[in-house]
Amino acid sequence: MKVVVTGGAGFLGSRLARALLDRGELDGREIRELVLLDVTAAAVGADDPRVRAVVGDVADPALLAELVDADTDVVFHLAAVVSGQAEAEFDLGMRINLDGSRRLLDACRAAGRVPRVVFTSSVAVYGGDVPAVVTDSTPLTPQTSYGTQKACAELLLADHTRKGHVDGRVLRLPTVTVRPGRPNAAASGFASGIVREPLAGVESVVPVPPEVRMWVLSPRYAVECLVAGAELTDAQLGSSRAVNLPGVSVTVGEMAAALGRVAGPEVAARVRWQRDPAVEAIAATWPGAWDTTRARALGLRGDADFDAIVRAYIEDEMR
Amino acid sequence: MKVVVTGGAGFLGSRLARALLDRGELDGREIRELVLLDVTAAAVGADDPRVRAVVGDVADPALLAELVDADTDVVFHLAAVVSGQAEAEFDLGMRINLDGSRRLLDACRAAGRVPRVVFTSSVAVYGGDVPAVVTDSTPLTPQTSYGTQKACAELLLADHTRKGHVDGRVLRLPTVTVRPGRPNAAASGFASGIVREPLAGVESVVPVPPEVRMWVLSPRYAVECLVAGAELTDAQLGSSRAVNLPGVSVTVGEMAAALGRVAGPEVAARVRWQRDPAVEAIAATWPGAWDTTRARALGLRGDADFDAIVRAYIEDEMR
Repeated sequence: MKVVVTGGAGFLGSRLARALLDRGELDGREIRELVLLDVTAAAVGADDPRVRAVVGDVADPALLAELVDADTDVVFHLAAVVSGQAEAEFDLGMRINLDGSRRLLDACRAAGRVPRVVFTSSVAVYGGDVPAVVTDSTPLTPQTSYGTQKACAELLLADHTRKGHVDGRVLRLPTVTVRPGRPNAAASGFASGIVREPLAGVESVVPVPPEVRMWVLSPRYAVECLVAGAELTDAQLGSSRAVNLPGVSVTVGEMAAALGRVAGPEVAARVRWQRDPAVEAIAATWPGAWDTTRARALGLRGDADFDAIVRAYIEDEMR
Repeated sequence: MKVVVTGGAGFLGSRLARALLDRGELDGREIRELVLLDVTAAAVGADDPRVRAVVGDVADPALLAELVDADTDVVFHLAAVVSGQAEAEFDLGMRINLDGSRRLLDACRAAGRVPRVVFTSSVAVYGGDVPAVVTDSTPLTPQTSYGTQKACAELLLADHTRKGHVDGRVLRLPTVTVRPGRPNAAASGFASGIVREPLAGVESVVPVPPEVRMWVLSPRYAVECLVAGAELTDAQLGSSRAVNLPGVSVTVGEMAAALGRVAGPEVAARVRWQRDPAVEAIAATWPGAWDTTRARALGLRGDADFDAIVRAYIEDEMR
């Protein structure tokens, strides 16, 4: 089986690549080729003969046509410009998040094999007057350019699936935390910083009030859900291709409290609250309560609570 | 005031152009220039000095940049490939219905005047498991490529409005009937044929069963709603930019009965029922009941019933 991962050198992409190489199979079939496309060279599996790391632009039709061929069984489409950057650089966000998705679907269609396409969408497709509890079929009312681009890509993926060009599945990711490394341009970046920086002995500035509610998932379970999402059958999904992954609903204040419980009050004391109206405005559009009955019925799993997410970060990234 | 109409030589576009020229003003300001862009030359106002008929491609960025300039106050974006054609010619539908809309919004943004953009969307943005009564905020679940393209364009227009690039308003048109002339490639074409052909003494083949329910509006009220839609203020619309226009909910059987009441049983006898599975499959995705409270609260008006629609056709098109 041939698998293509866009954004294959990124945070989730590299972890997914590692997981796929370690498993060696997907949906019961041996992975013989793993293409990792990104703007920088993927480091995972650099000396693994199954891996082909490709540096290139996800919105380049010629490159996509070369990478997604008649042998391609599964495509994980993770490549994206994150929310803060898509808001600041409108044209870039449109090109990568919308054109990239569209051209990838076109490449799949042209290849003719009807690959499974796992597309990572986002909570950012919701916003504004959302219902108290968000379900898989809550209307898409994005309030950011990033969310708009993701929502359009969801609709296009559904149409290409209906037309028989791809067998698509949309996994709407909660905010994935804790991300290691440096802060990125995502408006939700503080959801990682609030744990990562204090554990590293550094002060973390949280730009929203403690009562802001978020919906979060650890990288560990995000990767598990991506793999499981690729293994779902057409029959399991039916005509509704989008699934909200089983995140944890938690306030930012509760996140800080969990950090204190797991790592001690002296660590949690490194969290400093200093509101930033720009981030707060974006955060205000995020719903906080979710019905993920369908995800769990499909066998997709998430973290038990935020304490578990903090512990997973310490286990997976700090050892 | 300068007004641009894409699809300005089309069925609705030409009637809108006629109405704008007859009024001479929009939103209380004199119309000094009316640009009618279409793939064929607009005939309306051919010797009116206010009119500039432009033959060109709505997805041509250079042309759009020339037509939508810093003087442009209002853009009516009607140009589209219809549903049946967008389903059969996927790439063409994507280019005209999605790229065209996107590039038009880009041109508006580049011009910098923040024009009002009136975009005609469609009932085709709904489909599948729709609720018993469709409202303005029912989830967009298109089941056709045409509906997908319209839904994406709605989302992009909302984002450009939020970003302050345009002052957008989406008017979701019911099936507009009765259309004069020859049948077009819309799957809903029979909703016009069922009246037009019998009145012309010709047999009309209806490809769906009589119990199929449709949501319809006369060209007369469609044009009135377009004009009224352009005159709505930013404050009236708020953050919710899409409005389902006040159509009449009617079964195809009731349409035939109305024809009989208005034109006589010998005319209605020219309706022949012969199911076409392809059209029936598309028609099955159309919802039939609508809550248009918001449209009416905004002052948008529709027909009293289907009898009135038949009479409007006879008055407007057969005299």
